[in-house]
Amino acid sequence: MAEALAEVAEKTADGACCLPSVETPGLSAADSSVLAARFKALADPNRLRLLSLVAAGDSGEACVCDLTGPLDLGQPTVSHHLKILVDAGLLAREKRGVWAYYSVVPGALDDLAGALGAFGANA
Amino acid sequence: MAEALAEVAEKTADGACCLPSVETPGLSAADSSVLAARFKALADPNRLRLLSLVAAGDSGEACVCDLTGPLDLGQPTVSHHLKILVDAGLLAREKRGVWAYYSVVPGALDDLAGALGAFGANA
Repeated sequence: MAEALAEVAEKTADGACCLPSVETPGLSAADSSVLAARFKALADPNRLRLLSLVAAGDSGEACVCDLTGPLDLGQPTVSHHLKILVDAGLLAREKRGVWAYYSVVPGALDDLAGALGAFGANA
Repeated sequence: MAEALAEVAEKTADGACCLPSVETPGLSAADSSVLAARFKALADPNRLRLLSLVAAGDSGEACVCDLTGPLDLGQPTVSHHLKILVDAGLLAREKRGVWAYYSVVPGALDDLAGALGAFGANA
């Protein structure tokens, strides 16, 4: 998945410099679907806060039990949002004992940032 | 708006290195709302393709009349998606004669990419 997004970023960057006009699409329908799904996972304030909390943790991971307090949300709601971030390939989940631990998938956010940067390269 | 997002990126980066644990939120509720609104505008494949077409244009801008063909969408649908991108502060719109011309707001995508990069800095 990370490779797919890096490829999107690359394709867009390459495409941007070679496109003679806007009549040739810069981003394919398939690539845009992959990207849109990830941005959809980020399109919620609580999910962004959860992601920042997980990323900011000293150990690089956070227990779901530590994430409910700062957001003042119930555990089912937090778990629901975390699942969306996992399904989008942004967070990894590991069950240890009774708790699930979450960490940011290495490179996932950088790949998305790269895709955005490639869009903006011509702006 | 660009300044607000740059500030978000900066705050997150600062917060990430200083947070003793995940009990202190890395991203405020207000900042996360601003970011989420922009990601929501990007959470649609057709809007991503429109953005890439506008960004890839030789002149740095694109007429709405040039954007309907590549996506095989009607002009009302294209205009609807473009308005969402304008409202999110990602595209600028200028009316000249009968047509509206769109360009990527300078720095808008880089600011978003920076915010994502700051999230991932600890990952």
